[in-house]
Amino acid sequence: MDFPSSLVQKAVDEIAQLPGIGRRSALRLVLHLLRQPKDFSERLSGAIATLRQEIRYCNTCHNISDAPQCNICTNPLRDRSVICIVEDVRDVMAIEATGQFRGTYHVLGGKIAPMDGIGPQQLTIDALIERVEKEKVKEVIFALGSTMEGDTTNYYIFKKLSDFTLTFSAISRGIGVGDELEYTDELTLGRSISQRIPFEISMKS
Amino acid sequence: MDFPSSLVQKAVDEIAQLPGIGRRSALRLVLHLLRQPKDFSERLSGAIATLRQEIRYCNTCHNISDAPQCNICTNPLRDRSVICIVEDVRDVMAIEATGQFRGTYHVLGGKIAPMDGIGPQQLTIDALIERVEKEKVKEVIFALGSTMEGDTTNYYIFKKLSDFTLTFSAISRGIGVGDELEYTDELTLGRSISQRIPFEISMKS
Repeated sequence: MDFPSSLVQKAVDEIAQLPGIGRRSALRLVLHLLRQPKDFSERLSGAIATLRQEIRYCNTCHNISDAPQCNICTNPLRDRSVICIVEDVRDVMAIEATGQFRGTYHVLGGKIAPMDGIGPQQLTIDALIERVEKEKVKEVIFALGSTMEGDTTNYYIFKKLSDFTLTFSAISRGIGVGDELEYTDELTLGRSISQRIPFEISMKS
Repeated sequence: MDFPSSLVQKAVDEIAQLPGIGRRSALRLVLHLLRQPKDFSERLSGAIATLRQEIRYCNTCHNISDAPQCNICTNPLRDRSVICIVEDVRDVMAIEATGQFRGTYHVLGGKIAPMDGIGPQQLTIDALIERVEKEKVKEVIFALGSTMEGDTTNYYIFKKLSDFTLTFSAISRGIGVGDELEYTDELTLGRSISQRIPFEISMKS
């Protein structure tokens, strides 16, 4: 693409580096910004700049937080003896939205993926082990995505924590509520049969 | 969505105001920004801020430009007696990419759309009329999108310019090169029959 202005070129170059946004979409966004009042661009660029400069993470669970400790870790009603291991803040938000979990989280910040250069050191695994050591943790729940990287990470953490007296569990996989068997992929359906659960438990909402 | 941090909330709010980006995608972008080095966010926010602050438009054709006059208007090889009317800079880039046009452009900045509050005054139509008055313009080519707003705008400009001695033309509509008749929509196919062109002309590349 041949741009008539270096300012447009630069903005397109930067925006197109975001995931899922190609150069064509970036140009569309740039033209949208130019059509909006000046303070729209100012607010947007300000929010992006301060986001990265001032973001803080909870000292305990490493979730994004405004304070040194997040709202969940400081909440006296949450059960700190139960830690749910998740990949990032989106997973925390998704589980919180269900209203079904009263324990705390540990945000890893990713999954072990040697191909992408992400090893255990890039994640918050050491902090997790420290937390299990210091606090009276009774249960660790693995809630990473069901991918090869997720399974690798789960297994690595499980090995690291296996010397502690802990209950280990993992979120259940299976057919979504309201889904038809017919349209479920074979892997999920296979797992949901081999990892079947007692009928009485399955009847609980 | 319940955000764990007001910084994240603010960034998501701003990014989600961009066209085609929902709150979920905005959160994905925010998490991506947080995973990148600090200077990535700085470059992005800087490019957005300076874009809107320092953008300039060509005095003649109103295309985006780094200088008071754009590269096309100052190019002595371009035929200034031919003006191609387009909606925005994307259209200029698209036509320039074909390498088939040696005239100049006039960028309207939109189409007349009363429902969206865009009247002739919001566009650069007065500047176009002034240009036709002052310069020795021989031909005006209408190259707006083939929508109701495009047709309205074309007709409005045509009326305004009808007192001048000018050739008026419009880019041809029809079946795309390489397209099958079978898969062409009825309106386009109908137009391409009723507005058929001499066979000799159709054989030119």
